[in-house]
Amino acid sequence: MNPPYARIADLSAHAGQSVRVRGWVTHLRSSGKVAFIVMRDGSGTLQCVLVKSSVPADTWELFDQLTQETTIEVTGEVRTDARAAGGFELGITALELIGSSPIDYPIQPKEHGIDFLLDHRHLWLRSGRQRAIARVRHETEQAMRDFFYERDFTLVDTPILTAAIGERSGLFATEYFDEGTAYLAQTGQLYGEAAAAALGKIYCFGPTFRAEKSKTRRHLSEFWMIEPEVAFNDSNDNMNLQEEFVSYVVQRVLERKKPELDELERDTSRLETVVGPFPRIDYTDAIKILESKGSDAKWGDDLGAEDESLLVEGHDRPVFIYNYPKEAKAFYMKENPADPRTVLCDDLLAPEGYGEIIGGSQREDDYDKLLKRIHEEGLPVDAYGWYLDLRKYGTFVHSGFGLGLERTVSWICGLPHLREAIAFPRMMNRLRP
Amino acid sequence: MNPPYARIADLSAHAGQSVRVRGWVTHLRSSGKVAFIVMRDGSGTLQCVLVKSSVPADTWELFDQLTQETTIEVTGEVRTDARAAGGFELGITALELIGSSPIDYPIQPKEHGIDFLLDHRHLWLRSGRQRAIARVRHETEQAMRDFFYERDFTLVDTPILTAAIGERSGLFATEYFDEGTAYLAQTGQLYGEAAAAALGKIYCFGPTFRAEKSKTRRHLSEFWMIEPEVAFNDSNDNMNLQEEFVSYVVQRVLERKKPELDELERDTSRLETVVGPFPRIDYTDAIKILESKGSDAKWGDDLGAEDESLLVEGHDRPVFIYNYPKEAKAFYMKENPADPRTVLCDDLLAPEGYGEIIGGSQREDDYDKLLKRIHEEGLPVDAYGWYLDLRKYGTFVHSGFGLGLERTVSWICGLPHLREAIAFPRMMNRLRP
Repeated sequence: MNPPYARIADLSAHAGQSVRVRGWVTHLRSSGKVAFIVMRDGSGTLQCVLVKSSVPADTWELFDQLTQETTIEVTGEVRTDARAAGGFELGITALELIGSSPIDYPIQPKEHGIDFLLDHRHLWLRSGRQRAIARVRHETEQAMRDFFYERDFTLVDTPILTAAIGERSGLFATEYFDEGTAYLAQTGQLYGEAAAAALGKIYCFGPTFRAEKSKTRRHLSEFWMIEPEVAFNDSNDNMNLQEEFVSYVVQRVLERKKPELDELERDTSRLETVVGPFPRIDYTDAIKILESKGSDAKWGDDLGAEDESLLVEGHDRPVFIYNYPKEAKAFYMKENPADPRTVLCDDLLAPEGYGEIIGGSQREDDYDKLLKRIHEEGLPVDAYGWYLDLRKYGTFVHSGFGLGLERTVSWICGLPHLREAIAFPRMMNRLRP
Repeated sequence: MNPPYARIADLSAHAGQSVRVRGWVTHLRSSGKVAFIVMRDGSGTLQCVLVKSSVPADTWELFDQLTQETTIEVTGEVRTDARAAGGFELGITALELIGSSPIDYPIQPKEHGIDFLLDHRHLWLRSGRQRAIARVRHETEQAMRDFFYERDFTLVDTPILTAAIGERSGLFATEYFDEGTAYLAQTGQLYGEAAAAALGKIYCFGPTFRAEKSKTRRHLSEFWMIEPEVAFNDSNDNMNLQEEFVSYVVQRVLERKKPELDELERDTSRLETVVGPFPRIDYTDAIKILESKGSDAKWGDDLGAEDESLLVEGHDRPVFIYNYPKEAKAFYMKENPADPRTVLCDDLLAPEGYGEIIGGSQREDDYDKLLKRIHEEGLPVDAYGWYLDLRKYGTFVHSGFGLGLERTVSWICGLPHLREAIAFPRMMNRLRP
């Protein structure tokens, strides 16, 4: 009878037993009498030991046919080895070659240029670093969904194909049957507001699109965004929710994905401090701070990446900047009754120079003021009729925010560029593979 | 001091106490001395009792200003009432009108045509039936994600904007900077296969798109699909996984969303039987069954909706039909070694006539056979170079499937049409709101 199949991550349940493991070769070395095969199976990495004197001659000879990425099945005994990654090694009794791999495998253990790596993203994903990022990303997403599930929010999947949208520039367009042009959604928020009136607390979480010709390390043309919307939350409640949410997510990833963060050489002490309350700086005060630091930011400006870095300087957790000038922000944000030049909104800036990860606001719930803003922005009133209806039939205080997933994953992983935070990044010069 | 705010779903923690509740009026009636306000807040429905002799005159008079959908805040005592929905009613001591609602609210307690309802989808979502569907959908999605999370699959978000795609007809296209035309993904599978070689067990779950001019109750132009892909799973393992997955999801929704299914008048006894193993019928046998039932389906045909209904007749759980003719299925499916006219694939048909909810297959892992199929289908080989690489560098047996979320939610909820299974459905004549 053949030994059972086991995943590398589950070997502790098989210590001292024989198992079969399937996966891909990552490293090979041989002394002539003992050979070592390091393999991965997606769940972990395992060193397998092949001893010439202990196996049939054809098994030993098979070793010479192995290359990086060869698919193999190994049979052997699971041996405890404190020095090994994962704590186990495998003493090979049988070896089978399932799929060969030519020696021209593109990704070698040397430095490659970023364009080359992105051209081979389907293979680059197999590297240890990229696998670690993928696992951290998954944990981040599951933590986000669990956070809202546990708090009785209802998930509402908002549409990608839309006729009316939140922000007007940088749209991808497609012909939609006989209905004219459809645009790929830049946000689910407006739909989320409609759903909040039905379900109270909702969130959406899906891909969003920006056809902007920006080539910075902070922009993708397709990225995932999570957007909660809560009936009867004001701007202050909204910041409380963001604080609780970001703390929960970061602490959970730290707790469950420490090996992956270590693989990425992330200084996790910089994440341990990410616990609310977060500092909250009024926009007007922020401008004063910037002036004192020599920035030429003036009241009325939106804040650029450099200004954001100056504002989080010296803080060991994210920082809110709240109540920006109306002109710097979107039409749907609620006018601040205490200072109508401003709106009730916030940006949450991540520490270590990672910049804005959240934009949030209380929404304008006054029909006339919202209509006026739509006119001022030159938006097509017809397309926003349904959105205005939310202020006509039982208007309500409500607030929400959007958190960019790739920016958050980059921050948690300590990545210099968003492009590694998603499996197949889309940028203005990158649509393949 | 004002009483605390409470959500209707949480009132059991406040029995006998005073609370404030915010929400929207759904029904009103008055005897002249006692008035009843039924309200909803997204978490539940609550009957509030206003007694003329117990409140100030202006509070009593405010009742006359209320209409369906008026936003209100009520203060009062939480009283146990076995007859009430949720088990509580509120004895009003104070009432505040937050947002009025004109009496022309479009959705009245009467029959409306489907086009009218879809035109007012942003308001229709507020009805009890639509709220129940939204909650069942959320539970379904969270159960799906939890199933894979608990089994150590890694979530991989595959791209929407693609240059190469799995199936060639019915594509939405958009200009992509200087890179030419991008197409909206119809599946994440091909990308999922690349990720399976890196991470072993993966899934993707996101919106997918079909620009097909189909007007059936079983098609949307934008729908969500969950697609796991598992290294070293063969077609039989793949069916086992589908069986375990579908059973898990249906039983969890039954367990946690019984009140919502009751609201939808779903016969839940038809869901209780959805536990594996599911019947598995070879395609060739299925054709014989169809012939015996008078269908004119012939060997070689794909199966239509009517044939699917005939095949599940008499079964109280989903039914697999497996190993279809090659010509009826996609190019990436693995040729069946036992009968090369067929491929190693399956469709999973839901009971009660809900039809196909899953399509799955073992993938062709032979480089030469896959290349031949790509040529036969007239697909651009260049665009599939990266996909062929997965067969070049360490090929591996692997299988996966795609489950359509809206079809599954429709089945679980007992809906006659997919359009109610998503918040803002997109069909060939429907892009708004």
